[in-house]
Amino acid sequence: MLQSNEVEEAIKRILSHKGVVGLVVINHEGIPIKSTMENALSVQYAAQVTQLLDKSRSMIKELDSNNDLTFIRLRTKKHEVLVCPEKDYAMIVIQNPTES
Amino acid sequence: MLQSNEVEEAIKRILSHKGVVGLVVINHEGIPIKSTMENALSVQYAAQVTQLLDKSRSMIKELDSNNDLTFIRLRTKKHEVLVCPEKDYAMIVIQNPTES
Repeated sequence: MLQSNEVEEAIKRILSHKGVVGLVVINHEGIPIKSTMENALSVQYAAQVTQLLDKSRSMIKELDSNNDLTFIRLRTKKHEVLVCPEKDYAMIVIQNPTES
Repeated sequence: MLQSNEVEEAIKRILSHKGVVGLVVINHEGIPIKSTMENALSVQYAAQVTQLLDKSRSMIKELDSNNDLTFIRLRTKKHEVLVCPEKDYAMIVIQNPTES
């Protein structure tokens, strides 16, 4: 199981980056276990990113069963959504690319 | 409607990048209209990326109806899949990040 201080360290490091506007950590069921955003938005991001992760993973496996998804970066008009999937959890970071 | 020479120029420029291993252009129905890869793989990428685009777009709209998806980057163990959605088509590029 992942040590919580490892996650804390990672969160601190990420939040120190200029341009980071939000961060959510979700468990393997897609439930937010840590967030810098208010609850309703965290739950929304958690639900949407969980579906996106499922779709992306199945796409990669479909194309090559020996391959694996390691990172997602969605660029939008307003910001960037970064998703880092790990075994027990996934980290979601929202940042303004122009400031980062 | 997009001028085909614009697409040709973009394709030539992308293919000149070191590390690019494949490129597929799909129309708004998800049908491959140009590809550097053999047909079966092009059709597979087209189908999978079309679903990924639909999911990503709906996710972004769900979170903020005034926002729009502009680019997707999926990093995998073996390579990177880049998806650039435009109005009438989408460009899919597969590249080896270590060589690019």
